Amino acid sequence: MYGAGDVRVETVPNPVIQEPTDAIVRIVAGCICGSDLWPFASKKASEHGARMGHEFVGVVEELGSATSGLSVGDFVIAPFVASDGTCDFCREGLQTSCRHGGHWGGTEDGGQGEFARVPQAAGTLVVVPAGFDEKLIPSLLSLSDVMSTGYHAATKARIEPGQTVTVIGDGAVGLSAVLSARLMGASRIILMGRHEARTDLGREFGATDVVAERGEEGIAKVMQLTNGEGSHIVLEAVGHMPAYEQAYGIVRPGGVISRVGVPQYEDAPVGFGSLFGKNATLTGGPAPVRAYLEPAIQQVLNGEIDPGRVFDRRVAIDEVPAGYAAMDAREALKVMVTF
Amino acid sequence: MYGAGDVRVETVPNPVIQEPTDAIVRIVAGCICGSDLWPFASKKASEHGARMGHEFVGVVEELGSATSGLSVGDFVIAPFVASDGTCDFCREGLQTSCRHGGHWGGTEDGGQGEFARVPQAAGTLVVVPAGFDEKLIPSLLSLSDVMSTGYHAATKARIEPGQTVTVIGDGAVGLSAVLSARLMGASRIILMGRHEARTDLGREFGATDVVAERGEEGIAKVMQLTNGEGSHIVLEAVGHMPAYEQAYGIVRPGGVISRVGVPQYEDAPVGFGSLFGKNATLTGGPAPVRAYLEPAIQQVLNGEIDPGRVFDRRVAIDEVPAGYAAMDAREALKVMVTF
Repeated sequence: MYGAGDVRVETVPNPVIQEPTDAIVRIVAGCICGSDLWPFASKKASEHGARMGHEFVGVVEELGSATSGLSVGDFVIAPFVASDGTCDFCREGLQTSCRHGGHWGGTEDGGQGEFARVPQAAGTLVVVPAGFDEKLIPSLLSLSDVMSTGYHAATKARIEPGQTVTVIGDGAVGLSAVLSARLMGASRIILMGRHEARTDLGREFGATDVVAERGEEGIAKVMQLTNGEGSHIVLEAVGHMPAYEQAYGIVRPGGVISRVGVPQYEDAPVGFGSLFGKNATLTGGPAPVRAYLEPAIQQVLNGEIDPGRVFDRRVAIDEVPAGYAAMDAREALKVMVTF
Repeated sequence: MYGAGDVRVETVPNPVIQEPTDAIVRIVAGCICGSDLWPFASKKASEHGARMGHEFVGVVEELGSATSGLSVGDFVIAPFVASDGTCDFCREGLQTSCRHGGHWGGTEDGGQGEFARVPQAAGTLVVVPAGFDEKLIPSLLSLSDVMSTGYHAATKARIEPGQTVTVIGDGAVGLSAVLSARLMGASRIILMGRHEARTDLGREFGATDVVAERGEEGIAKVMQLTNGEGSHIVLEAVGHMPAYEQAYGIVRPGGVISRVGVPQYEDAPVGFGSLFGKNATLTGGPAPVRAYLEPAIQQVLNGEIDPGRVFDRRVAIDEVPAGYAAMDAREALKVMVTF
């Protein structure tokens, strides 16, 4: 990506092993993320393109000497950050704060390409025990970011069975948050979104109510649906200020707002009138996908969840720029790139 | 209080029962709160004085017809808000959001006076089972606000044994937060405060380290004390922006900031650079004192805790204006008013 709206497909050298902890992965499928749309909308033009994409599944092609647990030919999922698996944060399940971790893309390989060098491969990559299965690719790929991010929102919120959960945002992460809230036993799931094809999928994932209104109107609607109480839990899967304002407007006293949409603001209301007076809790952050992968892979293999339904378009590498445009125009919910 | 710096002692009519759920309490001891200092510093002058004080212990003088569980002559503690004890929020332990609750003071009786009408008395007042005991008054009185507020900070933060807890603020609430963190098994308790008599009491309450520095210097000191990691838990017991800035500066990734100092700001940093990137949680609010009273009274009666040590000055009613001035000048930590 050279700037806003300027995505190009270019040939670069294949990656090579640089550290004994590296693996080279041949990418089978990657995707375009909602968070890629922020730079697509606003990135300053530059002579140096940034490599894009941070979600992928693939096959191990080559391994450094310190990559125990992996074999050439393994079908693997890569979380959207690398992590060593051994530091204190990794052991606590907060791999996004790994002491030796890092992000994909930028000057390094991105997931929207044919190959990637994966640092800290033993800690980062998770082998799919069933091996390669074409029809499971969308759901397994979704675990690398969106589904795990929705699950993180629900996990950080500590949803208890029987609670009312409102999800703000009908993007792929919001829909994954709906599915996660259902898995945790929420009895009522209100989805705030206005794109009918998406909210229909949200209903199939477990939403019991859909609120298309936004702002004050949307807040009033959720308050009305909850007898004036508000929602025990609010999962905010957008990242802009109006979504945050909705969140504190509808959270029930003593409730939790869990954010996973990357905030496009730094300052926001948190004082007596927004969070403090209600004893509301604000939590969330980048999802430590790695912490959730093993059980989630099992749920996909068992057929318990089918989060890959968020992909509604598949493109080849030459069509990636068109994929960005389609997601940006909200014509596509989530675009898969296959190689 | 007629305005900033203008506290007067006046004679008003004795309160009378207005609702069947009311009780009239003869106040034995009240106190001046750190939160009373905000209006003492900034309240606009007015012709109509506001009645002050929201923490007291006393003896039941008269009861309405719907006040089961209480008897005339009972020695009782009044939390800083009234609550009916029956609504859903009360049953969940969030009495500060009671559907029929309310605050003391303003146009109603305050706790810095000889008598108060207590609405929702059956839900609000807690009888001290041991009856009146002069020497226990300071500790029992502290439960009506400061000790329970410190405990609320620790409770909302869900401190786990072995964690590092940093308390920002060496006022009565901060010191109570130190004591509460110790009760919950924190292995290291860093107290940020620069008033030596107070931080000395903090050490007796359980602080293992004291950091007198503030701002960037204070942050650097805490980071150094925690091997560059930061503090699992930060209990913020001040309420102004520099304290909040310190809080997000020192919280460890994945950690919790729990605020009980009433925020003197509405907007604050909560984006990627402050909370989100670290997966830090922000929680806290007004303490539902009523939820904590029964076990805390037992701890005081058993001699397990002695939170009344925060009172370092005792005044009669005529000296209340001087009590405000002493707390405002930080000459007194916490002032008790006896009748």
